[in-house]
Amino acid sequence: MKSKVIAAVFGLFLGMSYVMEALAQSPAALVRQRQAAMTLQSKYFGQMNPKAPYDQAAFARNAAYLEVLSHMAWDSFVPATQGEKSRALPEIYTDAAKFKLAQDNFQGAALKLAAAAKSGPEQTVRAAWGEVNNSCNACHDAFRARAN
Amino acid sequence: MKSKVIAAVFGLFLGMSYVMEALAQSPAALVRQRQAAMTLQSKYFGQMNPKAPYDQAAFARNAAYLEVLSHMAWDSFVPATQGEKSRALPEIYTDAAKFKLAQDNFQGAALKLAAAAKSGPEQTVRAAWGEVNNSCNACHDAFRARAN
Repeated sequence: MKSKVIAAVFGLFLGMSYVMEALAQSPAALVRQRQAAMTLQSKYFGQMNPKAPYDQAAFARNAAYLEVLSHMAWDSFVPATQGEKSRALPEIYTDAAKFKLAQDNFQGAALKLAAAAKSGPEQTVRAAWGEVNNSCNACHDAFRARAN
Repeated sequence: MKSKVIAAVFGLFLGMSYVMEALAQSPAALVRQRQAAMTLQSKYFGQMNPKAPYDQAAFARNAAYLEVLSHMAWDSFVPATQGEKSRALPEIYTDAAKFKLAQDNFQGAALKLAAAAKSGPEQTVRAAWGEVNNSCNACHDAFRARAN
C-alpha cells in the first residue's frame, strides 16, 4: 500500500515535470517556432521553383535542407496555442489524424525530392518539386485560414 | 570589337539577372528568414541545455538539426536589410571578415556537437554544447544590439 502511494506521488511529480517542460515554451514561442519552420521551408522550396534555372548542386542542397526542415514545425502545434494570432485552423486539433496524414504526405514528398535532387535528372527533380507543392497546398487548404 | 560589345551586353544582362534574383527577396523577407533560422537554432539548442536530462537519441537529433540550421541565416544578412527593424548591428557589414569568422566558429562548434551527440559520452556532449553556447554569445556580443 505504502509503495503504491509512493509510486502515485512519484508519478504525479513525473507528470508535473512533463507539464512544466511543455509550459516552459510559451504558446507565443511555439507559434514563432512553427512559423519559423514554415518561413525556412518556403525559402528553400521557393529557390527551386519552376522558373529557377536548374543548378544541380544548389537544388541538392536546398532539397536536403527542406527535408530536414520538414520535421520541425509539427510539435509546435498544440491546443494551448489556439489563443495566439495565427492562421492555424481548429481542424488541426479536431481532425488530428488528417493533420498527421498531411504532415506525412509532405515529409514523404520532401524526402523524395531530396533523393531525386542528389543526382537528377532535372525532369525527375521538377516532378518531385511539384509533388511537394501539392502536399503544401493540400495541407494549407485544409488547415490554414485564407489570407485576408 | 563586336564580340567585346556582345560580351559586355551579355555580362550586363547576367549581372542584372543576379540583381533581380536578390531583389526578388524583399529586405523584410530576408530579415524574417534569418530570424527564423535563429528561432529554430534556439529551439533545438535550448532543448539540450545543461538542465535538460541527457537523452542520447533526442540530443543526437537536436544536434543534427542544429548543425543543418547553422548554415541558414547568413545569406540573409545583406546591407539592403539595414532599414528593417532588427537587432543586427552595422558592424556586420563594416567588419564582414570578423562576422564571417564568427559564423565559421559557430558552424564548427555545431558540427563538433553533432558529431559528439551521435554517440556520446554525455560529458563530451555537454562540453561541446558549451562551446556552441560560447560561439553564440561571442557573435551576439559583437554583432547584435542589446535587448531594450
